[in-house]
Amino acid sequence: MKAILVGFGFIGRSLVKALASKLELIKRFHPGFKLIGVATRQGYLLDDNLDLAALKEASKISDYPGRLHEAPALELIEASGADVLFEATPTNVVDGQPGLAHMEAAIRAGMHVVTSNKGPLVVAYRRLMELAARRGVEVKFEATVAGAVPLFSLVSSSLKGDEVKRVYGILNSTTNYILSRMHFDNVSFEAALREAKERGIAERDPSNDIEGIDAACKLVIIANAIMNRDAKIQDVERTGISKVTREAVGLARKAGCAIKLIASASEVLTVRPRLVPLNHPLCVHGTLNAVCLETDLAKRLIIIGPGAGEETVSAMINDLLSLPSRGG
Amino acid sequence: MKAILVGFGFIGRSLVKALASKLELIKRFHPGFKLIGVATRQGYLLDDNLDLAALKEASKISDYPGRLHEAPALELIEASGADVLFEATPTNVVDGQPGLAHMEAAIRAGMHVVTSNKGPLVVAYRRLMELAARRGVEVKFEATVAGAVPLFSLVSSSLKGDEVKRVYGILNSTTNYILSRMHFDNVSFEAALREAKERGIAERDPSNDIEGIDAACKLVIIANAIMNRDAKIQDVERTGISKVTREAVGLARKAGCAIKLIASASEVLTVRPRLVPLNHPLCVHGTLNAVCLETDLAKRLIIIGPGAGEETVSAMINDLLSLPSRGG
Repeated sequence: MKAILVGFGFIGRSLVKALASKLELIKRFHPGFKLIGVATRQGYLLDDNLDLAALKEASKISDYPGRLHEAPALELIEASGADVLFEATPTNVVDGQPGLAHMEAAIRAGMHVVTSNKGPLVVAYRRLMELAARRGVEVKFEATVAGAVPLFSLVSSSLKGDEVKRVYGILNSTTNYILSRMHFDNVSFEAALREAKERGIAERDPSNDIEGIDAACKLVIIANAIMNRDAKIQDVERTGISKVTREAVGLARKAGCAIKLIASASEVLTVRPRLVPLNHPLCVHGTLNAVCLETDLAKRLIIIGPGAGEETVSAMINDLLSLPSRGG
Repeated sequence: MKAILVGFGFIGRSLVKALASKLELIKRFHPGFKLIGVATRQGYLLDDNLDLAALKEASKISDYPGRLHEAPALELIEASGADVLFEATPTNVVDGQPGLAHMEAAIRAGMHVVTSNKGPLVVAYRRLMELAARRGVEVKFEATVAGAVPLFSLVSSSLKGDEVKRVYGILNSTTNYILSRMHFDNVSFEAALREAKERGIAERDPSNDIEGIDAACKLVIIANAIMNRDAKIQDVERTGISKVTREAVGLARKAGCAIKLIASASEVLTVRPRLVPLNHPLCVHGTLNAVCLETDLAKRLIIIGPGAGEETVSAMINDLLSLPSRGG
């Protein structure tokens, strides 16, 4: 199995490290597995003997001692003859690009896709899945929601007998960090946001997180993948956390609750700040994510884990291992 | 696929209800699925046209309008020609019987086994798994640990790329109920235990739960199944909760903690009361169970759910659906 990677930011580089450290294990599932190409906006590397050890030391692909083709990622996808594309470019929720074009090209070329990029799934979930089904390939996206939490795999592998009625939880790490700081340290929203930016938890333009857009994107993917909807981001009723005051957090605290940004998928899709009792298992803090599944048999299961960071590659490695093997 | 059930207590009867309600779904995985026999200490029913609708109304099998064979379950197992045995007799951790004999007979007869009974796995995990491997059948036991929480399925299906370093958590509902009552309502151990008995959460002889034996059994299964050990119950360092005083619980509360009976499998296997910060995601209350998996990639995942009750049949149904299909 030959793989290519598009995107060499934090997730892409973390993935390369994990591929290097897990190579023996991966080869047990996919004999002959190797990464043969990496693309960024700089250009791409394509080499049947790409050296993972050297690549994982590179902070950008031009650091790698090999020929850099100054051409777009689409050229790599079409020229590589790979079996799987790792899509790790940044999420764009407006039109899903450039990830959407990468994924469509890969699927048309008969590749499986493992993505950490939400954009294409938010914009075109059904279209991508139908295209993949026609081409007989799989699109795996565990890393797009709740970081390392294996939510989709849990539902499809471990709850085959259960009907999922509702999915809700904390799906955005940045807002959970901010709300946790406000709750435990009695700071204002502005101070908590400033600190989150300083620590690299919030982006310079944090509006995607604090306005609930990121959580809404994840909710759209959950609704489509778990509840068989054809939801779009416009279907989500959304309120962010920028109007949550120190006073409101204090009142919640006195009532034995915390204010959390809860995304919920049932008949309707909502993202909004809600009071959650401190003793509720969903009430996790810091950058943790937590997802509750309400089902007919198991009733209520909750899964908690790191919502972002290098742990996310756990989801991508497991997605890779779950692909049907194609031999050497 | 033909199935038989041994044990018609709470779990057995709940399973029959779930089989009835999920029959269409089950047949999609296992065409021609039917339950053809049920055994208890009273005797057994064996009927190729067993009526699930009538059976689920029965509180004991002699209520069912059919011929009751006054003979042991082993006779049903050997005479039935079934493809799968549901083993739902009570756990016996001394010698695993009668469940162990049932499971061995079923495996020798070429049946898969889906069990909610911990005893045989605690006493003879390796032997049973080797016997099953030789016969080409599977032994599934999701229901034995943490009720509806799909722990084993999560590890084997969703974390194939992760190395599990440590597993720990709250594995016994009765003690968690008692400790939660002591924590929130400031009652004594004796008062909380009395109430748990009245509510049917603790058994009349509660020593298996309160001395940590039940949690230790589950830990042995975790160590063997997830960490590839050959552990026995004697390998678990075990302290129960009967010496946890109201004063100790009060001091923990003041320190922002709760006392929880934590089972932990790493290099060593321990069950003992520990202080857990109230904000820790493992700190769940009432009859909930919570399991933390520490792995190399995902770092720390926690899964929470009902530790007992009819929800447990979610695990048995999923085990059934995970068996390889044998057609009609």
